Amino acid sequence: MLALGDIEAAAKRIKPLINRTSVVSSSRLNEYLGHSLFFKAECMQKVGAFKARGASNALAWLKEQGKLPKKVVAFSSGNHAQAVAWAASRFGMQSEIFMPENVSKVKKQATESYGAKVVLCKTRQEAEEKARIAAEKGAVLIPPYDNDQIICGQGTACLEALSQVRDIDAVFAPCGGGGLLSGTLIAAKGISKSIKVFGGEPAIANDAAKSIRANKIFKWKSMPMTIADGARTLAVSERTLQYLKKLDGFYEISEEEIKYWTQWMCHLLKLHCEPTSALGLAAAYHWLKGQKARKNVLIIISGGNMDKKTVDEVWDRDYLIIEPGKFNPSA
Amino acid sequence: MLALGDIEAAAKRIKPLINRTSVVSSSRLNEYLGHSLFFKAECMQKVGAFKARGASNALAWLKEQGKLPKKVVAFSSGNHAQAVAWAASRFGMQSEIFMPENVSKVKKQATESYGAKVVLCKTRQEAEEKARIAAEKGAVLIPPYDNDQIICGQGTACLEALSQVRDIDAVFAPCGGGGLLSGTLIAAKGISKSIKVFGGEPAIANDAAKSIRANKIFKWKSMPMTIADGARTLAVSERTLQYLKKLDGFYEISEEEIKYWTQWMCHLLKLHCEPTSALGLAAAYHWLKGQKARKNVLIIISGGNMDKKTVDEVWDRDYLIIEPGKFNPSA
Repeated sequence: MLALGDIEAAAKRIKPLINRTSVVSSSRLNEYLGHSLFFKAECMQKVGAFKARGASNALAWLKEQGKLPKKVVAFSSGNHAQAVAWAASRFGMQSEIFMPENVSKVKKQATESYGAKVVLCKTRQEAEEKARIAAEKGAVLIPPYDNDQIICGQGTACLEALSQVRDIDAVFAPCGGGGLLSGTLIAAKGISKSIKVFGGEPAIANDAAKSIRANKIFKWKSMPMTIADGARTLAVSERTLQYLKKLDGFYEISEEEIKYWTQWMCHLLKLHCEPTSALGLAAAYHWLKGQKARKNVLIIISGGNMDKKTVDEVWDRDYLIIEPGKFNPSA
Repeated sequence: MLALGDIEAAAKRIKPLINRTSVVSSSRLNEYLGHSLFFKAECMQKVGAFKARGASNALAWLKEQGKLPKKVVAFSSGNHAQAVAWAASRFGMQSEIFMPENVSKVKKQATESYGAKVVLCKTRQEAEEKARIAAEKGAVLIPPYDNDQIICGQGTACLEALSQVRDIDAVFAPCGGGGLLSGTLIAAKGISKSIKVFGGEPAIANDAAKSIRANKIFKWKSMPMTIADGARTLAVSERTLQYLKKLDGFYEISEEEIKYWTQWMCHLLKLHCEPTSALGLAAAYHWLKGQKARKNVLIIISGGNMDKKTVDEVWDRDYLIIEPGKFNPSA
């Protein structure tokens, strides 16, 4: 099992490469909810997402081991693709990213802008397969979450945030493949066992929740089409499940709630937050409702990469007319 | 005429009240445009807009003069309303804000959340009239731009930014009533006569441009319905026109360009920017196109207050498929 020291080593390794992002809060939101909420603004991270941490740590670690390859490959339609492309360019390496052909132009464009060669594939499965074949020919495959160095890199967001705000009672992060949440757990519990760590996952993409309950990996046959595109993974891995099982709680969030909290996060924090970011806030909201004493919570914002289609979906209804804390999604 | 010292005095006065906002930039945007663009993130200011600077300076100045009233009034449907409500609450004063009844619920809610009494009026003209009547009964009216203390407060955004980034060649700000732009001009030229200062205004709400050209105030009969709602003023004032005439240039921006640049600002800066904010960037883009040497420019982001209707209008077309610098609005 990884420990705090591994996250600290990752933080040291990637320090020259990444942004030390701000921790922000909204006094209006704190008044509405009666607690103090602090947000780690990873949307302001390189490539607009926490994924820059894991990707850069994976490459910096390879370099440290004297194993830096000439070329890296990855498969992803999301932030991990951009993160690997960006990190590779920082190490002067080639990168080849395999993406499903329905990826939005703006995501493909962003990945290419970091110098990657993008290969479009018919499906995500084909993208994964082609990446593995490329890896057999000498490139190194950088996986999105099933890798210790990726987990350690993602954990540096929480480590950094806990040095920026004191007396945090609980930390909340979204769950896709579980890399961010595993790293967050290792960092927070390593700093203090009394800090609780919770996850948030879309209810319609709740493979992690099912896997935790059954203590056995549940895998979707096809990608669950939640609006939280960072959580559209088919399954967590054995590696991440061992950490997810140790969480203090896990919340399954409806699509409506995701949109509701994304609108309010954008509106109150003035950050361009992607819907995956709202999973942490929605989970925090549910936990805080049951707390009698005032709590300080840290919420990791995953990123801010949205194409027009996603923005349209987030804003399909006007949720700003329902004040924070007064939304009843089952109504 | 106001001078740098007046802006510096305002900065000192409001320092304990306002946020020292970050200056942010996007390496991708800089690559696209071939220049270095720095953005003063006033969307992260108190109340989500630079207007907090002017309103708090007006009240802090009244206090300094021993003239702090029990109650202040203002008329506005926008950021100034919230700013006056917020500033009044910070000074323990009552505030009454007169708003047109078509104001969005989220804006009314925000103004009330700062403790203001909101009075809805049939039109903006009626709101203005009622505020003036209230002012005759002992309250102090805080005008949105035609006031030296408001101008000085708004100018502190530029003053602060020029202490955060060095070697700025030109500063760009949006123009509504001209308060921000006047303050920006006084601050920038006071620091160095070699810093150029430019304004951006919606082409369909170009009363300031007309007024500058004719050296005489042009006034709209009814509010020009540009998407840049911070620039929906009927006219500048004699006070602000005297500064606007000294600008190094002024750009009239089409509605399409405003939407285009708002999308790209949100996407690349990861900030929730209101369309008025894009006026500065659009103006900078036009000026930079004519520059041969690489320039460092400062752009003042006005704020980040958008209701769902505005978000929908900004995202009515997908502009992210057209890379920054490749947009031809006349096409």
